[in-house]
Amino acid sequence: MTKLFAERTIKAGEAGIADAFAASNDANLISFAGGFPDAALFPNAAMGAAFQHAFTDGSQNILQYHDNRGYLKLREQLAARLTDDGTPTQADDIILTQGAQQAIDLVARMLINPGDGLVVEAPTYFGALGAFDNYGPTYYEVPMQSDGMDMHALQKVLMAHPVKMIYTIPDFQNPTGIVMSLKKRQELLRLAKQYDVVILEDSPYRWLRFTGEQLPTLQSLDTDDRVISLGSFSKILAPGLRLGWASGGKRWIDAIANLKNGADLESPFMTMVAVSDYLAENSLDDHLVQLRRTYQMKKDAMVNALRCNLPAGFKVNDPQGGFFVWLTGPADVDMGQLLKDEVLPHENIAYIPSRNLYPSKSVVNAARLNFTGEDVAAIQTGAARLSAALAQAVVQPATAAGLS
Amino acid sequence: MTKLFAERTIKAGEAGIADAFAASNDANLISFAGGFPDAALFPNAAMGAAFQHAFTDGSQNILQYHDNRGYLKLREQLAARLTDDGTPTQADDIILTQGAQQAIDLVARMLINPGDGLVVEAPTYFGALGAFDNYGPTYYEVPMQSDGMDMHALQKVLMAHPVKMIYTIPDFQNPTGIVMSLKKRQELLRLAKQYDVVILEDSPYRWLRFTGEQLPTLQSLDTDDRVISLGSFSKILAPGLRLGWASGGKRWIDAIANLKNGADLESPFMTMVAVSDYLAENSLDDHLVQLRRTYQMKKDAMVNALRCNLPAGFKVNDPQGGFFVWLTGPADVDMGQLLKDEVLPHENIAYIPSRNLYPSKSVVNAARLNFTGEDVAAIQTGAARLSAALAQAVVQPATAAGLS
Repeated sequence: MTKLFAERTIKAGEAGIADAFAASNDANLISFAGGFPDAALFPNAAMGAAFQHAFTDGSQNILQYHDNRGYLKLREQLAARLTDDGTPTQADDIILTQGAQQAIDLVARMLINPGDGLVVEAPTYFGALGAFDNYGPTYYEVPMQSDGMDMHALQKVLMAHPVKMIYTIPDFQNPTGIVMSLKKRQELLRLAKQYDVVILEDSPYRWLRFTGEQLPTLQSLDTDDRVISLGSFSKILAPGLRLGWASGGKRWIDAIANLKNGADLESPFMTMVAVSDYLAENSLDDHLVQLRRTYQMKKDAMVNALRCNLPAGFKVNDPQGGFFVWLTGPADVDMGQLLKDEVLPHENIAYIPSRNLYPSKSVVNAARLNFTGEDVAAIQTGAARLSAALAQAVVQPATAAGLS
Repeated sequence: MTKLFAERTIKAGEAGIADAFAASNDANLISFAGGFPDAALFPNAAMGAAFQHAFTDGSQNILQYHDNRGYLKLREQLAARLTDDGTPTQADDIILTQGAQQAIDLVARMLINPGDGLVVEAPTYFGALGAFDNYGPTYYEVPMQSDGMDMHALQKVLMAHPVKMIYTIPDFQNPTGIVMSLKKRQELLRLAKQYDVVILEDSPYRWLRFTGEQLPTLQSLDTDDRVISLGSFSKILAPGLRLGWASGGKRWIDAIANLKNGADLESPFMTMVAVSDYLAENSLDDHLVQLRRTYQMKKDAMVNALRCNLPAGFKVNDPQGGFFVWLTGPADVDMGQLLKDEVLPHENIAYIPSRNLYPSKSVVNAARLNFTGEDVAAIQTGAARLSAALAQAVVQPATAAGLS
C-alpha cells in the first residue's frame, strides 16, 4: 500500500529535518547539527513561576478554547517590542503560532498553489523547505553572497518567471549566519514591488546580534503590505514553549488565522498567559544580554578552533550573531558522504551537510555548524577533531578507500 | 493582490470553523455552537501542580527540543490505557499532536493527493473538512443512519470510485451523537479490506459514554493495519492543553512524524511531561466518572427542554454520550438563514447549522447543538427560547418577511 502515500509524504522523507534532531540523542555525540539553544540559559525558575501564576491567578480560563490568534495581552507586549525595534506593529497585526515553523507552513499554505514560483536563498533553512514542499512550489534558488542574496540573480529570476513569494532570513541567516545589507534590503523591496511579489521575512535570530549595528527589518521598509514577518520565542526564551508568531497586514493575518483552524484550531492559551506573565515580571532585555554574551563566546570558540585547525581548502565564516557558522570545503569534497562514512561513525560529531539546504540538492561541499548547543570545551574538542577528520579525508579521499 | 491567495485559502473562508468559536465571545450569548467542555470541570489545581512539578523536578530538560513523537513516558501511559480499552497498543504506535485536529491535518497531508477519493459521513465534523480541504480531495458523502454510516451507500461509492480513505467518528459522532453499531463496524472493515482503503477513526468522545455498552474500536477489529485512530485530551482533560494523538502501524506513525517536522517540528515537551505527571498522580478514571455524570445531566436537560418545546416538524435525538445532539426541522427550513436572521441577533443563541457539515453544503434543515459548554439553567432557557423562535419562524417564514 506504499502507493497510498501522497507525493509530499515521499518528498518529506528526503527533507532531512528528522536527521538533525535524531542525531542529537546520543549522549557522547558532539552535535553541531540541530539548532539547539544552550539549555543552561533557559529561564526555568522564572518560567515555572509564570506557569504557576497562570494556573493560580484565576482571572483567565487558561484551559479552555480561546481566540485562535492568541492571548491579546501577549500580542500587545509583542507589538510594543516590535515597535521598539523599529517596526510599528499593533496587536491585531500578530497571530501566535506553534513556533515560527508553523507560521512558515501556514504562510505557504495561504499562498502557494501547486507550481507557483517561490524564491529561496541558496542555501536556506531546510525546515522551511520541509514546509514548502507540502504545497508543491516551483523553486528558484538565488545564491547567497557575503551581504545577502545576489540581487542581480534575483532580478533575472523575476524577469524570467512568475514568482509569488520570496523567502528570506535577513538576520544571521540559517544556515550561513549572513546579514543582508541595508542596500540589499532596499533593493529587495524595490524588486518585490516591481514584480508584485510577497516577501516572507523569517527572523528568529534577529535579537541575537553580538557585534555591529542592527539593520531595519524588511517589514519596516515596506510601504505596501507585501512583507509578512516571522519571529519566535524558541531562540530567545526556549523552544519547548513552541511559541512563535507571524505579523503583517490584516488580509494576511485573517487568512492565516482561518487556516490555523484547520491545522490545529489554536495554540495553547495557558502557555501564552505564562509567557505574557514572564515578560511582565522579568526583563527579556537582560536575558538577551546574557544570551548574546554566552553565544558570542561560543561562536568565537568555534571559529577560532576551526581556523587554527582546518586543513587547506576549507574555510569558515565569522557571523555577527545568530546560531550558525558556514563551513566550505574544496569543490570535490562531499560533506554529506564524509559525515555518514567518517565523521559521525568515527568521530561521533554531527553537522548539517549542505545538500539538503538547497531545493536542487546541488551543493555538497559545505556544512552548517551550530555553536549554541554544546559547551565551549565540547566546541573546541569537536572543532579540532572535525578538522583532523577533514584533513585525513582530503589526504586520503573517502571515495578512494574502497580501492585499497 | 487577492489573486495571490492559494485556492485552499479561499475555500477555508467558507469552512465555518471560525464562526463556531467567534460566536462564543459575547458574555450574554447562550452558545450551543462550539464544542466547549464545561470549564468548571477542568482539573486546574491538579494540572497546575503537575506543571509546577515538571518545572521543579529537574530530571527532564522540559524547555529543550526533544523527540518529535512526544514524551515516551506519556506515550507508554496512553498505550496502556488504549490497551485496557481493548486496542492493544505500544508506545511506538503513538505520536502526540496539537490536539486531534493536527492529527487529522497530518493524516490528510500524508495520504491525499489532489483529486483522491475521500469518504466522509454526512454530516461530519466541519473541522475535519477544514483540514481535508487543504489537500484537494474528491469527497464522497455517505449518509448517517441511527446506527452509523449507511453501508449500502458506502459500498456503492466504493464500487464506483477509487477511494483512498474513509473518515469516520464511530463513537458519539460529531455532529450527530450517533454510535456506529458493532455490525456496521465489522462491515466497514470488510469493505475497507475488499477495496483496499485506509480508515481514519476519530474518537475524541469515546470515553464519555453515559449509558449503554462500549463497543470495540475499529482499530481493535482491524487485522491488516489499515486503521489510524485519533484521540484527544481536549474533551477528557482540557482543550487548552492542545494535546491529542494518532495511533497506528509503524509506516503511518513514521510518515506522520516526518510530516510533523515541516508542520511545527514537535509539540511542547513541558506539556507532555506535566500531563504524564497528572496521569501518574491522579485518577483519570475518577475524573471521567465526574465528567460523564455532569454531561449526562446536561444532555438530559437539553433533550427534555427541546422535546417539551420544539414545534411540530422538529425533532432532536438522544445520544448515549459525547458532546452533541442533532436537531432536524422540516425540509423547507434553512437553519443557517434562521440563525443569522433571527436566532443569533434576536435570541442571542448560537448553534452550528448543518450546511457546513456537508462538503456538498446540500442539507440546510438541521443543526448541531452542544450541551456541555453551558450550565443547566442556560441550557433550559436557551432550548426553550430557541424552540419558541423556531415555532415563530415556521408560522411566519423568514423568507416571507421581506414581502410585507
